Amino acid sequence: MHTKFIWVASSAILFSSQIAGIVGLPAQARRSSSPPYRNASLSVDARVRDLLTRMTLEEKARQLDFYDGDESLQPGLPKKSNRTPPGADVFSETRAEQLFGTLGAGAVHDVEPSAGLYNRMQRWLIGHNRLGIPALFIEEGLHGYSNGTVFPTPIGLGATFDPGLAHDTAASIAAEMRSTGAAMVLAPVLDLAREPRWGRVEENFGEDTFLTTRMGVSYVQGTQGDSLATDHTIVAEPKHFAGHGSPEGGSNTSPVHMGERELRSTMLPPFEAAFREGQAMATMAAYHDIDGIPITADSELLTTILRGEWGFRGFVLSDLGAIKRLETAHHVAGSPSDAVCMAVHAGVDMQFYDYPHDVFEHALIDCLHDGRLKQADLDRAVSAVLRVKFQLGLFEKPYVDEALAVKEHRSTEHLAVSLRSARESITLLKDANAVLPLSKSVRRIAVLGPNGAVARYGDYEEEKNGLHISIVDGIRKLLPEATVSFDEGVDIQKALAAARDAEVILLALGEKQGISGEGFDRTNLDLPGNQQELLEAAVGTGKPVVLVLENGRPLTIGWAAEHVPAIVEAWYPGEYGGQAIAETLFGDINPAGRLPVSFPRTIGQLPDFYSALSSRQHRYVDSDGKPLFPFGFGLSYTTFEYSAFTISAQPDGQDVLAKVTVRNTGTRSGDEIVQLYVRQEVSSVATPGRALKGFQRIHLDPNESREVELRVPQRVLAVWNRQHQWVTERGQYTAWIGGSSTATLSANFQLR
Amino acid sequence: MHTKFIWVASSAILFSSQIAGIVGLPAQARRSSSPPYRNASLSVDARVRDLLTRMTLEEKARQLDFYDGDESLQPGLPKKSNRTPPGADVFSETRAEQLFGTLGAGAVHDVEPSAGLYNRMQRWLIGHNRLGIPALFIEEGLHGYSNGTVFPTPIGLGATFDPGLAHDTAASIAAEMRSTGAAMVLAPVLDLAREPRWGRVEENFGEDTFLTTRMGVSYVQGTQGDSLATDHTIVAEPKHFAGHGSPEGGSNTSPVHMGERELRSTMLPPFEAAFREGQAMATMAAYHDIDGIPITADSELLTTILRGEWGFRGFVLSDLGAIKRLETAHHVAGSPSDAVCMAVHAGVDMQFYDYPHDVFEHALIDCLHDGRLKQADLDRAVSAVLRVKFQLGLFEKPYVDEALAVKEHRSTEHLAVSLRSARESITLLKDANAVLPLSKSVRRIAVLGPNGAVARYGDYEEEKNGLHISIVDGIRKLLPEATVSFDEGVDIQKALAAARDAEVILLALGEKQGISGEGFDRTNLDLPGNQQELLEAAVGTGKPVVLVLENGRPLTIGWAAEHVPAIVEAWYPGEYGGQAIAETLFGDINPAGRLPVSFPRTIGQLPDFYSALSSRQHRYVDSDGKPLFPFGFGLSYTTFEYSAFTISAQPDGQDVLAKVTVRNTGTRSGDEIVQLYVRQEVSSVATPGRALKGFQRIHLDPNESREVELRVPQRVLAVWNRQHQWVTERGQYTAWIGGSSTATLSANFQLR
Repeated sequence: MHTKFIWVASSAILFSSQIAGIVGLPAQARRSSSPPYRNASLSVDARVRDLLTRMTLEEKARQLDFYDGDESLQPGLPKKSNRTPPGADVFSETRAEQLFGTLGAGAVHDVEPSAGLYNRMQRWLIGHNRLGIPALFIEEGLHGYSNGTVFPTPIGLGATFDPGLAHDTAASIAAEMRSTGAAMVLAPVLDLAREPRWGRVEENFGEDTFLTTRMGVSYVQGTQGDSLATDHTIVAEPKHFAGHGSPEGGSNTSPVHMGERELRSTMLPPFEAAFREGQAMATMAAYHDIDGIPITADSELLTTILRGEWGFRGFVLSDLGAIKRLETAHHVAGSPSDAVCMAVHAGVDMQFYDYPHDVFEHALIDCLHDGRLKQADLDRAVSAVLRVKFQLGLFEKPYVDEALAVKEHRSTEHLAVSLRSARESITLLKDANAVLPLSKSVRRIAVLGPNGAVARYGDYEEEKNGLHISIVDGIRKLLPEATVSFDEGVDIQKALAAARDAEVILLALGEKQGISGEGFDRTNLDLPGNQQELLEAAVGTGKPVVLVLENGRPLTIGWAAEHVPAIVEAWYPGEYGGQAIAETLFGDINPAGRLPVSFPRTIGQLPDFYSALSSRQHRYVDSDGKPLFPFGFGLSYTTFEYSAFTISAQPDGQDVLAKVTVRNTGTRSGDEIVQLYVRQEVSSVATPGRALKGFQRIHLDPNESREVELRVPQRVLAVWNRQHQWVTERGQYTAWIGGSSTATLSANFQLR
Repeated sequence: MHTKFIWVASSAILFSSQIAGIVGLPAQARRSSSPPYRNASLSVDARVRDLLTRMTLEEKARQLDFYDGDESLQPGLPKKSNRTPPGADVFSETRAEQLFGTLGAGAVHDVEPSAGLYNRMQRWLIGHNRLGIPALFIEEGLHGYSNGTVFPTPIGLGATFDPGLAHDTAASIAAEMRSTGAAMVLAPVLDLAREPRWGRVEENFGEDTFLTTRMGVSYVQGTQGDSLATDHTIVAEPKHFAGHGSPEGGSNTSPVHMGERELRSTMLPPFEAAFREGQAMATMAAYHDIDGIPITADSELLTTILRGEWGFRGFVLSDLGAIKRLETAHHVAGSPSDAVCMAVHAGVDMQFYDYPHDVFEHALIDCLHDGRLKQADLDRAVSAVLRVKFQLGLFEKPYVDEALAVKEHRSTEHLAVSLRSARESITLLKDANAVLPLSKSVRRIAVLGPNGAVARYGDYEEEKNGLHISIVDGIRKLLPEATVSFDEGVDIQKALAAARDAEVILLALGEKQGISGEGFDRTNLDLPGNQQELLEAAVGTGKPVVLVLENGRPLTIGWAAEHVPAIVEAWYPGEYGGQAIAETLFGDINPAGRLPVSFPRTIGQLPDFYSALSSRQHRYVDSDGKPLFPFGFGLSYTTFEYSAFTISAQPDGQDVLAKVTVRNTGTRSGDEIVQLYVRQEVSSVATPGRALKGFQRIHLDPNESREVELRVPQRVLAVWNRQHQWVTERGQYTAWIGGSSTATLSANFQLR
């Protein structure tokens, strides 16, 4: 037993039986009972500096390495996802010793959501490296962690236009994660979903820079809270830094064609805000190249901008295999060590299953010896990782309270957030002749289609998790006296027969996993399979038809928009989806979600994001090129009237202040998303025809009116000018306010 | 009469009756009988400098202005295109005086193709400006001038892979133009056709940088010859400088999303070669913006690169209205004078119907006075225009020989070039079971479809011009004993009835003007109208069917590729198109055209150019993302075998030399397009998976073999590196050689 371990005295069990096996401890380290890096009263920076001086090259390299926690379990076990129940008793010290040796781990990934298992692994890891450095446990959790609460996908969260919900969703996920030891989530996704063919659209908050910025900051704040050193906050990791949402051909990881100005003006602001305002302490370097420079080798982005301009002090994780792609996809590295050193030199701080551990760690050491890597690069990377571990309090409090995990797991509060998010995300696209809401006195309802009896969660979730309330479940619960028939619609004649007696037919269509999600890019955005045929057959019956969509991206539903009386876009609404949809269809909920992405009429008009530069022509021989449903669009069961719109710049470079009076002129209570769009009349560089610069979700009862104030910091109006500087330019601006991107109520203002 | 005019003594008629009306002649000018700028033995630069010193601001501004020649004609005349016969007798001195006053004209456009009219107008203009500066007559003539010889469109010329043909086509057009006084053609188009939705694809040599470069240089050399001061050469004006072929959404003039490296590596090389190697003396500034910077306000492109790096000394013309778009589309200028001065400052030298003459010319003078424009900017622009006029010999020999125009107009030699080009451009896409060539003993042939009885010329031509030999015409002439029925195919049943007795059905399908061409962008690349239905019905008859396409862009003909036994892509083949198609169908010509653009399988996989960066994923849920027909692809009635491929770098930075033996292993003579593709194995920035770096069209008789040598200057392999420099990088390269971009015969070479 070694006195140097007394600093872990706050945890229940201090010493692993293998501790005596650690070799090579310098005499000084053995004698020092409390080195400065152990002193929690010192600044994190001072502790990092001290620890760094004590580390060997091998120990440093290890801190940049990322391990599959599954590999430390007993051999022969089934894969994590097939293992029930998840248990702490499978950790194998023999395996761990083979895997980690005596150097610990930078990060560990893909571990069971078990506080007990975490404590055992972390304890072993701390005990088995000379300096007692804890590992950072990193997990997926984009819209729910493992078998915890399942929340709507980010694209649905984007449709809520409610940053508070992004905060609460993220805080809920963080609490469930941290209680089991996971201290960093691979989220949020702050790409702009400007390429509907791309399967990952569902993971984003939509196509718009400003919406993504506000949702992203709130998500980060929800994840990280005021301090990382708590039992319910974790590190947020905005991704995929940067520009990942516009791959060539809509095909995931393909090259991005974009100049510096577009990158700066549209893609980077959500990240800048996430790091500067949200203080996110990690990010993920993306797979693609921009204008021929692979992100993982892009020191301009990862060092000059991220660290230099923005002062980012967290760490940069490779996307899974993105460093290796320098060799295998971008062909800018001739060997694994070239790839590793190029990436770390550019600003990447940790690999993610890129190379075998020995290859990766030796590469770093070799490069340092032969000069391909500078000591400063390595130390920057190690410092960044250590900084995060210190901020998380992992040195002081590495273990978790197993009772807390039980309490946090799918807590009532988290479940309520999920339900609220589902309710707020549902977006009403069409309601001809007020078909909706349906009367609760309906007694015979037919639900047809592949999304009727399942809860569609989207990617990075398993549909076996949570309550998985389907549309059929939701309606049956809401209307226990009604008969709700269901047919999947594989055989259309059979489906129509099942709907023969129905008073209303609900078509539950859209996309399932395997059509949307990572790696599921499409060259066609029509309803998949036979769904269009099913829809047309249902409409052909002459019965009232409501189309309910669950999908991850915009779909080309022109026929439906013309022929189906009511269309509800529900995105992937999480485990309460079916309940929220039922409540919406029958009027308990007045829908107020808005499209965070434009719906094109045809795939041939892409890209079709609303905020194109004003020189974009929407003019084709065979189409007016306009979207079928524009960004920001969504209907309500009530109506809102806007009046008294004023907007002006406050003196001395302060915010631009917009005021408008909004009145609920219908007969139902409801939410409205007040949206402010701005155009600069004459600018030094081309700017969008209009772009979102403010929004607020408000609730109004019938006849209630409210004056809404939206403040636009002048910085938000800045352009990246020809001199490569941010400048908010003097001159005339036009603003529009209303309930969608096609708002017509306008006013001008001047910046002087 | 003023003695200063004696320098125009070489022309037949010296003095206009209005000459005495010129006012404000400086005393010195009156006295000088032969100023240096009139001295043809001095260098052009010396003459430009001298002339510049003599000019007033108003005279300078006028040199940058561009006039509609039609406006100088007698009032009340019908539009040029409706006036028959074109005549010299309609020029109105009264109108001219109103239009031009006493300042002459920079350029005149849209004048009848009449040597007599030209001489009258030019004589009047020279006589009516104080310094006797001639006007530059500029006309359209992309693939034929006015009512002269009609040549295949550039996309068809690209399919020939025959730079010699580009040269001869351009030289023929130039001779027809110059003989009527037109001294500059608004061609060639050197954009890359990477966006098939764009209607102007037909105006380009295809999607590839290297092919476009070689065709473009030859076209420029054909246009300009060894000297501009001849009676048969004119100024070439490569356009649309630069990057115009990849507009957002495929919609003409829309923003281009591209970084500097992509612009430099893919879009600029054809222009650089056209200016440096071809010595083209004009260019056209394009409509679009790149990364937010409108081209007409892009001093980096128009000044730093074009003039600074490449030493361009010609002049930059605005695309029609492109300067005005700074105000109306890009919104970077707040007034006409802002737009004009911004453009001239950036490097534009002449407007093109942008603003009314007084607005434009006053703007230049105002800007000079208030400092928005520097004297040096104005003088650069004026010098560039004057330089071209001096080089053309317009000061010495401003008038044309009216007898020459008659001789050059549709000369036998020019017509032969057009026929040769049509024959070489035809591209055989499919020939299952050797359906083609058809036997000449066929006696009953049905031609169906909208392109059967017309000659499709494409944009910038009128189908009333030339011989307009249709497919039906061509077959009837070739097979006078056969019965050739024709039906347009509007009524499909009627069309099938007309084909009832046919032994073979030829489907003449594709695109007409109004579907392809400038401003005719599409969101759908299927066969237009009912053509697909007609095609399927024809195939349904069970008779042999041959699909002949005339179209300006790639079409999504997946069904045809699967079900139609033979497909011939004829592009827009000019006035001999029907003859060349008939000769090909019946075997007098062995087709050897190759696709200069990739044909995508569906519109949802765009962009789909073959030379994407190696990180491009072609992987979709619903498609393999591969093209239907790849770049460089085309079949022959014979077969070729490649062997003995070697490639190596010659010492001391010389060319890379590839050698391959090609043998005609079939039974017919034929042309083969030998194509060399190269990939850099490891580069400092991402590079294409493969890219064309050499090609040669050869002719081989059966059993004949030839060793083909292709030389690749190392400069052609350079990358624009991270330090913003062209570098040909050391290391390993892979090369493929064969008859298409999917060639598999490969070899490696090293650069040391």
